[in-house]
Amino acid sequence: MRVLTLALAMTALMTSQALAAPKWAIVVHGGAGVIERSQLTPEQEAAYRAAMTRATEAGAKVLEAGGGAMDAIEATIHLLEDDPLFNAGRGAVFTAEGRNELDAAMMDGRTLKAGAVAGVTRTRHPISLARAVMEKSPHVMLIGAGADAFSKAEGLEQVDPGYFFTERRWKSLENFARANNLPVPARPAGAKTPDSAEGLAHDEGKHGTVGVVALDSQGNVAAGTSTGGVTGKRWGRVGDSPIIGAGTYASNASCAVSATGTGEYFIRLTVARDICALVELKGLSLQAAADEVVQKKLTALGGDGGVIAVAPDGQIAWSYNTSGMYRASMAEGRPLSVGIYKDEP
Amino acid sequence: MRVLTLALAMTALMTSQALAAPKWAIVVHGGAGVIERSQLTPEQEAAYRAAMTRATEAGAKVLEAGGGAMDAIEATIHLLEDDPLFNAGRGAVFTAEGRNELDAAMMDGRTLKAGAVAGVTRTRHPISLARAVMEKSPHVMLIGAGADAFSKAEGLEQVDPGYFFTERRWKSLENFARANNLPVPARPAGAKTPDSAEGLAHDEGKHGTVGVVALDSQGNVAAGTSTGGVTGKRWGRVGDSPIIGAGTYASNASCAVSATGTGEYFIRLTVARDICALVELKGLSLQAAADEVVQKKLTALGGDGGVIAVAPDGQIAWSYNTSGMYRASMAEGRPLSVGIYKDEP
Repeated sequence: MRVLTLALAMTALMTSQALAAPKWAIVVHGGAGVIERSQLTPEQEAAYRAAMTRATEAGAKVLEAGGGAMDAIEATIHLLEDDPLFNAGRGAVFTAEGRNELDAAMMDGRTLKAGAVAGVTRTRHPISLARAVMEKSPHVMLIGAGADAFSKAEGLEQVDPGYFFTERRWKSLENFARANNLPVPARPAGAKTPDSAEGLAHDEGKHGTVGVVALDSQGNVAAGTSTGGVTGKRWGRVGDSPIIGAGTYASNASCAVSATGTGEYFIRLTVARDICALVELKGLSLQAAADEVVQKKLTALGGDGGVIAVAPDGQIAWSYNTSGMYRASMAEGRPLSVGIYKDEP
Repeated sequence: MRVLTLALAMTALMTSQALAAPKWAIVVHGGAGVIERSQLTPEQEAAYRAAMTRATEAGAKVLEAGGGAMDAIEATIHLLEDDPLFNAGRGAVFTAEGRNELDAAMMDGRTLKAGAVAGVTRTRHPISLARAVMEKSPHVMLIGAGADAFSKAEGLEQVDPGYFFTERRWKSLENFARANNLPVPARPAGAKTPDSAEGLAHDEGKHGTVGVVALDSQGNVAAGTSTGGVTGKRWGRVGDSPIIGAGTYASNASCAVSATGTGEYFIRLTVARDICALVELKGLSLQAAADEVVQKKLTALGGDGGVIAVAPDGQIAWSYNTSGMYRASMAEGRPLSVGIYKDEP
């Protein structure tokens, strides 16, 4: 009996050392899709890894200094929205009419408060607009011209729609229009000339999104997602990113999730909420819950994409059923990890 | 032992007779809120009961004839959208700018296919537009002018925005504007003179919505919800009705739910999906799951409203934490039941 007790105590000690829960953690994605080693030049790959590193380290810095999960997420997504490599903010894809219509959402796992916007056209950082909806309006979701007006009234940084323009996303739209026998719209006014980073951007397929989940040292989790949607989208299409429970969800009772992929499937499966429900109601580990929803349910329905997740106990996870996903993570006492392809950790 | 076996067999027999699962079932709501016996005149009460009866019987007729849950829901909601008593379609509340911006969603539990629209202004039956998004577009959610354009392109019945006008909703907006020091907008062009039914309408408070869940004789469940949102809404506010997982959800693996209430709370809690998750993952009865989410979680967060639900095995449930909810149900072999107040079944 004494031997067993000792053995159990030693096991408990070893386990607690091996799995010492980090006080803070951050996981970042920059979109999932057809991203294969053979398709990216060394320069492109290096550019994506550098961008993911910069963004993740910016968020980690906030968390390391004792900052909140919401602040870390916002800081990280600002960099990704500003970076033309990603389909969010500058570098967003175009609608069939040749416009950039941006969607974003944030959710605070501590309070279950949330904010989301869809179809906004003039806010430099849609993620900050989502946060403003949460913090400064009685609402959770604002759309279209009304959301643009709220943004201006709240004093968020406004830009000319041409600010979001990138040459490669415009080419994607031209290709989309030709392939679908749709008219190619006129180039937007104020479209800028390409900068050097744009030349390195890779077309990850139909979609792209950026998202961040974080755990702060107060034990709170949060999630944020920002996207331009899909190239050639029509009729005011909204994907999963700004839908609370689909592309974005956070609750201290379970976990925080941000998704990327063919949004329609993520909405139908309420992917983000479902992962958290499996953690909360079935006691699954975060990785098992993410895999259950992405590898089984999403795949069975014919959807493609991926998720990142973090839990209040420091578990982190990602899962995707595409050939690649731009992803990175960092946590207290653990080094930065950046991955793109399937054969990376 | 033999006595015990006999007793168990008898219990099983009695239970199976008592709970003989109906092959089809329909549950309807017309909004929840401050609806108290002392506030409604006998004429108002009679008008609401008659309207709920008409709508529910229309859906039941479809189901009784072997029709599908989606068809039954659409037929029922058409009547509620046309009826000025309810905040959906004609009789919808006004935005702060004096417009009617309508939201709706449908979800088919058999396929997990879903369609939703938000901020539409010219479609007589927004529920049919939600269904068209599901069946005739590759998308799940369309918003604003884009959704209006899709509606027209698909040939859905278009109306002048003045069609939705009712005098009492306009008065509610005027009161809202004055109470909030906002300008009272000009009366919309084409605003009709009141009809007799309008005079009977009761103001149920901040919100109102119509929703239907149904089980058809093929064993499929579905859900649909349609609303004008809240009086005086601004900045393109979207509530829970068109958010899959929040105000509307259906899955043959668990249940179908339609909600009504202060939408922001329903979005944050993914109310509809959460009820189905408790059925699916925790094995709760439908009523227990609905009560857990509405009476406990929603109430704890400070939200008010209610839900209706149906499961593939014929269970039906409703739950609300307001003083009243317009509700009705009917099922194979069971008579119509209509209720408004708390002290009714």
